[in-house]
Amino acid sequence: LQPSYSILQAYSSYIFGITAAFVGEHAVNAFKHAITLTLSALSDFQRSEHSKDSVFFRDGIRQIDFVLSYVEDMKKDAELKANSEDGKTYFVKIHAPWEVLVTYAEVLGIKMPIKLSDIPRPKYPPLSYMLGPVKLPSAVKNPSPEYFTAQFSRHRQELFLIEDEATFFPSSTRNRIELLWRKNRTEICDPKIGGQMIMCPLCDEVCDYWRLNTTCLHSKFSHLFDNESTVFFAIFMGIWVTLFLEFWKQRQARLEYEWDLVDFEEKQQQLQLRPEFEAMCKHKKMNPVTMEMEPHMPLCHRIPWYFVSGTTVAFGMALLLSSMVSIIIYRLSVFATFASFMESEATLQSVKSFFTPQLATALSASCLNCIVILILNFFYERISAWITKMEIPRTHQEYESSLTLKMFLFQFVNYYSSCFYVAFFKGKFVGYPGRYTYMFNIWRSEECGPAGCLVELTTQLTIIMIGKQIFGNIHEACQPLIFNWWRRRRTRTHSEKLYSRWEQDHDLQIYGHRGLFYEYLETVIQFGFVTLFVASFPLAPLFALLNNIMGIRVDAWKLTTQYRRPVAAKAHSIGVWQDILYGMAILSVATNAFIVSFTSDIIPRLVYFYAYSTNSTERLRGYVNNSLSVFLIADFPNNTAPMEKRDFITCRYRDYRNPPNHEEKYDHNMQFWHVLAAKMTFIIVMEHVVFLIKFLLAWMIPDVPKDVEEKIKREKLMTVKIIHDFELNK
Amino acid sequence: LQPSYSILQAYSSYIFGITAAFVGEHAVNAFKHAITLTLSALSDFQRSEHSKDSVFFRDGIRQIDFVLSYVEDMKKDAELKANSEDGKTYFVKIHAPWEVLVTYAEVLGIKMPIKLSDIPRPKYPPLSYMLGPVKLPSAVKNPSPEYFTAQFSRHRQELFLIEDEATFFPSSTRNRIELLWRKNRTEICDPKIGGQMIMCPLCDEVCDYWRLNTTCLHSKFSHLFDNESTVFFAIFMGIWVTLFLEFWKQRQARLEYEWDLVDFEEKQQQLQLRPEFEAMCKHKKMNPVTMEMEPHMPLCHRIPWYFVSGTTVAFGMALLLSSMVSIIIYRLSVFATFASFMESEATLQSVKSFFTPQLATALSASCLNCIVILILNFFYERISAWITKMEIPRTHQEYESSLTLKMFLFQFVNYYSSCFYVAFFKGKFVGYPGRYTYMFNIWRSEECGPAGCLVELTTQLTIIMIGKQIFGNIHEACQPLIFNWWRRRRTRTHSEKLYSRWEQDHDLQIYGHRGLFYEYLETVIQFGFVTLFVASFPLAPLFALLNNIMGIRVDAWKLTTQYRRPVAAKAHSIGVWQDILYGMAILSVATNAFIVSFTSDIIPRLVYFYAYSTNSTERLRGYVNNSLSVFLIADFPNNTAPMEKRDFITCRYRDYRNPPNHEEKYDHNMQFWHVLAAKMTFIIVMEHVVFLIKFLLAWMIPDVPKDVEEKIKREKLMTVKIIHDFELNK
Repeated sequence: LQPSYSILQAYSSYIFGITAAFVGEHAVNAFKHAITLTLSALSDFQRSEHSKDSVFFRDGIRQIDFVLSYVEDMKKDAELKANSEDGKTYFVKIHAPWEVLVTYAEVLGIKMPIKLSDIPRPKYPPLSYMLGPVKLPSAVKNPSPEYFTAQFSRHRQELFLIEDEATFFPSSTRNRIELLWRKNRTEICDPKIGGQMIMCPLCDEVCDYWRLNTTCLHSKFSHLFDNESTVFFAIFMGIWVTLFLEFWKQRQARLEYEWDLVDFEEKQQQLQLRPEFEAMCKHKKMNPVTMEMEPHMPLCHRIPWYFVSGTTVAFGMALLLSSMVSIIIYRLSVFATFASFMESEATLQSVKSFFTPQLATALSASCLNCIVILILNFFYERISAWITKMEIPRTHQEYESSLTLKMFLFQFVNYYSSCFYVAFFKGKFVGYPGRYTYMFNIWRSEECGPAGCLVELTTQLTIIMIGKQIFGNIHEACQPLIFNWWRRRRTRTHSEKLYSRWEQDHDLQIYGHRGLFYEYLETVIQFGFVTLFVASFPLAPLFALLNNIMGIRVDAWKLTTQYRRPVAAKAHSIGVWQDILYGMAILSVATNAFIVSFTSDIIPRLVYFYAYSTNSTERLRGYVNNSLSVFLIADFPNNTAPMEKRDFITCRYRDYRNPPNHEEKYDHNMQFWHVLAAKMTFIIVMEHVVFLIKFLLAWMIPDVPKDVEEKIKREKLMTVKIIHDFELNK
Repeated sequence: LQPSYSILQAYSSYIFGITAAFVGEHAVNAFKHAITLTLSALSDFQRSEHSKDSVFFRDGIRQIDFVLSYVEDMKKDAELKANSEDGKTYFVKIHAPWEVLVTYAEVLGIKMPIKLSDIPRPKYPPLSYMLGPVKLPSAVKNPSPEYFTAQFSRHRQELFLIEDEATFFPSSTRNRIELLWRKNRTEICDPKIGGQMIMCPLCDEVCDYWRLNTTCLHSKFSHLFDNESTVFFAIFMGIWVTLFLEFWKQRQARLEYEWDLVDFEEKQQQLQLRPEFEAMCKHKKMNPVTMEMEPHMPLCHRIPWYFVSGTTVAFGMALLLSSMVSIIIYRLSVFATFASFMESEATLQSVKSFFTPQLATALSASCLNCIVILILNFFYERISAWITKMEIPRTHQEYESSLTLKMFLFQFVNYYSSCFYVAFFKGKFVGYPGRYTYMFNIWRSEECGPAGCLVELTTQLTIIMIGKQIFGNIHEACQPLIFNWWRRRRTRTHSEKLYSRWEQDHDLQIYGHRGLFYEYLETVIQFGFVTLFVASFPLAPLFALLNNIMGIRVDAWKLTTQYRRPVAAKAHSIGVWQDILYGMAILSVATNAFIVSFTSDIIPRLVYFYAYSTNSTERLRGYVNNSLSVFLIADFPNNTAPMEKRDFITCRYRDYRNPPNHEEKYDHNMQFWHVLAAKMTFIIVMEHVVFLIKFLLAWMIPDVPKDVEEKIKREKLMTVKIIHDFELNK
């Protein structure tokens, strides 16, 4: 397996139609020639002399470079059919002779070694011996010497370092030619402060008043994620993302050089017309580049299909959002039930301080959400592939980008919308006691717990991210196992026959042209979890790391044992995914700034600390009391107050509003506007600082590392020199 | 004059040492050959037979491609010397024979026509005939047919469209080859409202209380620039800038194709070592690209120079900022004088409503500022060129980027710092009556007029921008005129002799290698005026347009008549200036958002309109009263109240603070925090919206226009095909 395959974008080509069209008439002729060669070799084929795992022709010299398989039912040629297990599948094994390889290496402009690299390997830094035991030995890291490469040319064959004609072209090329616990929280736990705070009920009628210290444990847990370090962590991650993407660019440049893709233009391959498009086209139009007539579909013929595809996407999104709304309704309706149930159930009293009705609702809703997401994903994948096909895109590139857009949009909304809801909408528009806002006039809006919404966002993220990862890895590992087992069971009817290598391989799963697409999509969605909400969930990068370590192993096992060998394809970058990663990196700075100021509790605490605190030694003492407004129970409208009558006349709620004795009662007070101004200022300052650092870093770090640039230049210089000398001496 | 010269970056090379080193030994030999040719031609040279303006050799056939001039004092060769005016300057006229042109065209990889372009010219859109009279006739726009071009090759000469050997290479190419041989508001005016408002004095002791309606005219003028449309204009300009830069990219791509620079790599030329560097170097080091020993200066030898250069830049900046501070002090100290003078002078009473002390101060300070800026510029240019030379940069590229960084940093601070002061600092930290803030404990901070700071920013910008443009154009036109007149006067001693064309040209100004640099710098600084403060000064783009129309004419006249013909150089983009333009475009969104919310008066008015207005029909009525806080005159500390006693006990000032009867008197009131929150929210919303649109537009508009891409592809295809066919038939 060529490394280019596992990281850079590889596109498996449609095996036959395309490659023939791509290489042109010559290729077809050469192909016929190759088939003739192979068929003649097949005629005197003796099965018994042959090992089961052999990848060589009967002569033991010529290597099998490609195996074509096709199914034919007509009993025309009984002799050849005998070679197959099920008696229907034909195998054509192809070996590319030297002349064919040489010709098409030139046509494809493949770069081959021309001179041993004379740039010394970088010296290890002075303290590198300390890292010795951890490092890979250089013979493992660089198994073959480095070469300068140049485009292969038949007429200058003697220039290239050809030791052995059989191994000069590596098999992938052959294959291609073939194809914290602290202060104010203790206030909540303090029976003298938290125990004295009578909070307004969290739902109408059913819920009772409650004391603040019942949420003590929950608040302590919340402080783990919601503290001053969150600000620095958010800033740090904004910068880390930039560095990550910059160093990825450098790594990409290095791989580009190592895999000889420096001057490679992938468009050629990608801009090839799709056979489906050609088949559907009746009109022709002149291509201004080749000046040849080419199938063309007028815009008016495409519009109905675009319309169908647009409506399907819109319908899909609507379905998605309505599923999210239904989960919100589930949360709202189930909360009252949980609250009354947990009130009455005696066994739950002991865990009440941690396992609040809010948490129970959040947990059950997140799990439900995760399941709904996975189910919707399954259906939408199929639908979007189908409608992209319906659009009849001209080229593979158009097909890819249309599908990528649809899939990414959908998965983005599917995975992140519930997180966006918890982070930025939940508890923001609840109104205040006596004038709560109601959804569809039935369900009262959700409030966040007294510890803030941040801990709920953390719960939500943990469940969705880990749920996705576990499901994804199991899916990736089990699906091919089951399919392969089933396939083998079905096809092995003549068990007495030799089960040849190519038959074994043929019975494996197909790593289709969308195989890599799913790998990218998974990685990009994971990148979103790591960056977009990292301020609320600092453990996300750790989970991502664990998932990636596992993913590498699962993928390696899968690709080497469960799938047919994929057809290698060249690509000089990860394409449109890079733009998506950059977009997410920029979006993440904004989302983290908003999480710090709106989801977390830091800014109100800081405002209290600097502007409102009256205690000069412990400046945060009194914050809990200050952050809760007073409501007169007598002001509750009909049928919303708890049914049991109590002996107190006011209750408290989280907001900055005027007390009942104020002339503009229950209006926002001055502190509200003060805190809001501080929140907005924080967002502006943080975004500007982070973006400034980001752009400076991105501008300062070169896209191509210095040593790679030198190597590229040296290679070019040497190639020109060698060819020039060669032409002179000819 | 080649168009590539006037727009794309052209670098004149240091004439001799470099180019010889660049081409290597071959060039030196060729050069010797050429000189021999020319000198033999000189020997039988007859002055009388020759026209004064001839650009041909005596035979009338061979064209003079390049004239080298050098001064020698030794009276060695009396015969040759006679050819020159002053008897000291030697002229060596060079003609490049066909073989030499052909050889070096190949070495330089110059692209020459290989086939007439077969891509049809774009059809005119249906309504284009209406634009007919305005359009240039196509024979003027496209004087010669379009060709596909390919890199010139000696061995395939017959492939290229050579009609006439003398005109095949255009003169700019010949010239380049040659070079190788060597190198608002009525309420204020209402006497019932504005006339009743007694404002607190604007300076201590000297100034008197004043009535708001005295600034009536000034406020009306201010409303021209400070109204609701400013918001939309700021957003519009943010988007306009993006479109401008995107279309510039397209234009650049089109020019790149038209001027055959598609595969051009400028680095070659730019990375050549500077002869000054080579002369200063004693150490040698191996170049990893060429594997040859190369002069190298160890870092420790450079550090003292970097240190000197760093200190000089820091000192320059300090000088700049101190000059700005001294202008602020001028404003502060002169304001009291103006205020008391205008109070006493009877003749000024009639213009008082418009010509306020603020305006007088602003005008005089701006003019002073403009003069200081121009003087500082003059000195700093020389200093930065000198210190860049001291740094001994390795290559021309290093030299250019070091100089560009210094000059741009300096000019940016020089031109914009006073505008940033007026926009974001003036009137923001004034304190309130009784507790004003004082600069150096002496000068009271400046307040903005009751119409807001925006109009002052407008004044400042107008004066600096227009002053700079007028001075710049005069400077550009007069300087060469005077110098040339002086030079000609000095050199024309033998008026009886034929004043030959090359002598005339030799006596013109030299368009040095920094000529284009200054043009770029001017354009970029102007771009800053157009974008950074456009919300406050919507006329800036108009002034810039007028300046550019004039600039084009002045430059054309200057380059064709006052300067020696510049040596053409290729470049495929405008280089680092593009990054600077992008940086400014991003900065401008932030500055305009801040100007709208902090400098202008729109946000407080909108907050009043939606949240505080009690008048339901005319919602803005009462705004002026609402925006002014009340101060009790008795609260003035000693020696700050006006000396004359008045019969009123309170005065008003612009701020949102509690009245004197409030328990926390003179603290910020709720409206202050409300307005601040609104301002911050506006900045966040505007920035996010504009950046989102910007990035979407930048991502959607392709960098290379579709037709240019097709042409490039077609050209490549045709070139490969033609060469392939040629090789086959050889």
